[in-house]
Amino acid sequence: MKLLEDRILRDGMTAGPGVLKVDSFLNHQIDVAFLDKLGEELARLFSDSGATKILTVEASGIALACAAARVMKLPVVFAKKGNRRNVGADVFAADCRSFTHGTDYLMTVSRSYLSSGDTILIIDDFLADGNAMRALLTITKEAGAAVCGIGIAIEKGFQGGGAYLRGEGYRLRSLAVIESMNDGNIVFGRENP
Amino acid sequence: MKLLEDRILRDGMTAGPGVLKVDSFLNHQIDVAFLDKLGEELARLFSDSGATKILTVEASGIALACAAARVMKLPVVFAKKGNRRNVGADVFAADCRSFTHGTDYLMTVSRSYLSSGDTILIIDDFLADGNAMRALLTITKEAGAAVCGIGIAIEKGFQGGGAYLRGEGYRLRSLAVIESMNDGNIVFGRENP
Repeated sequence: MKLLEDRILRDGMTAGPGVLKVDSFLNHQIDVAFLDKLGEELARLFSDSGATKILTVEASGIALACAAARVMKLPVVFAKKGNRRNVGADVFAADCRSFTHGTDYLMTVSRSYLSSGDTILIIDDFLADGNAMRALLTITKEAGAAVCGIGIAIEKGFQGGGAYLRGEGYRLRSLAVIESMNDGNIVFGRENP
Repeated sequence: MKLLEDRILRDGMTAGPGVLKVDSFLNHQIDVAFLDKLGEELARLFSDSGATKILTVEASGIALACAAARVMKLPVVFAKKGNRRNVGADVFAADCRSFTHGTDYLMTVSRSYLSSGDTILIIDDFLADGNAMRALLTITKEAGAAVCGIGIAIEKGFQGGGAYLRGEGYRLRSLAVIESMNDGNIVFGRENP
């Protein structure tokens, strides 16, 4: 999506090897009108997916998921990040390692909001090594829900997440795929390789 | 706001003394069309406030803040929750105690996204004892930004946050104020006492 690629080139900042900061418009400060456009595009890409619910994960996936959900007229459920300490039997849970922070956490969704009757579209702002996505997929599997697609704003194509998910047969659509970002030089790949 | 009061009575659940669960539509599963209506009402209430930016805190404030920001055509900044471990000098930070979880955390906002030139409307889904709001106010003060208003979806009037903020002279507007919720019986007070 050219709109997103242009914005990344204009406002994104590389911050060390493999780290892209887009927190001026996507995941700390939010340009709502811009995110709405990304959400509209995801809604278009998955308009025939049969989704009954959108699943994302706190915090930075929420705004994008809501933007798509508005158009698709679907509810959003966001998974929570926490730890094993205070988790009850009333949640689906999966362990996850954060690429950004190098820490482990537990991802949870209340059993009240996912079921075997759901067809889930997963939406997130970033796809890198795919650890968060694996945890979300574990949770949907635990719930017995179907997954009809995965919509991402920015995929880091040089990490393994996208290749893994496409290999598993998931319908993955990323609005921008970064092929490489050596020495701060961002090169985009095909949107859906 | 009758729409919100009715929804709380229909779908809210009391979960122990002073604990209201509205996670079926507000802060775990999100009814986007419904939240948009709350956002529109907050935008109306603060249309003359002169706000240049909306500040909220992850995770459950984000959807509501974006809903208001869309109408007001303002950017949203969401404060992040973390700990002292990996905080640099590039953030404004304030300690906070969570009423819900009984834990302490550090609230941070990048210095890039708040400044003395900003007039801030703070929006959050809940106001209880006001600890999160105090931390957000500390951060805006540290940034030298003005605060033109505080917009809340659900205020627990029987806790001290609202009285404190009104006493301090803040323009606080809560779309629903719960006066008491003894034995699961929810009683609403005046919206803006």
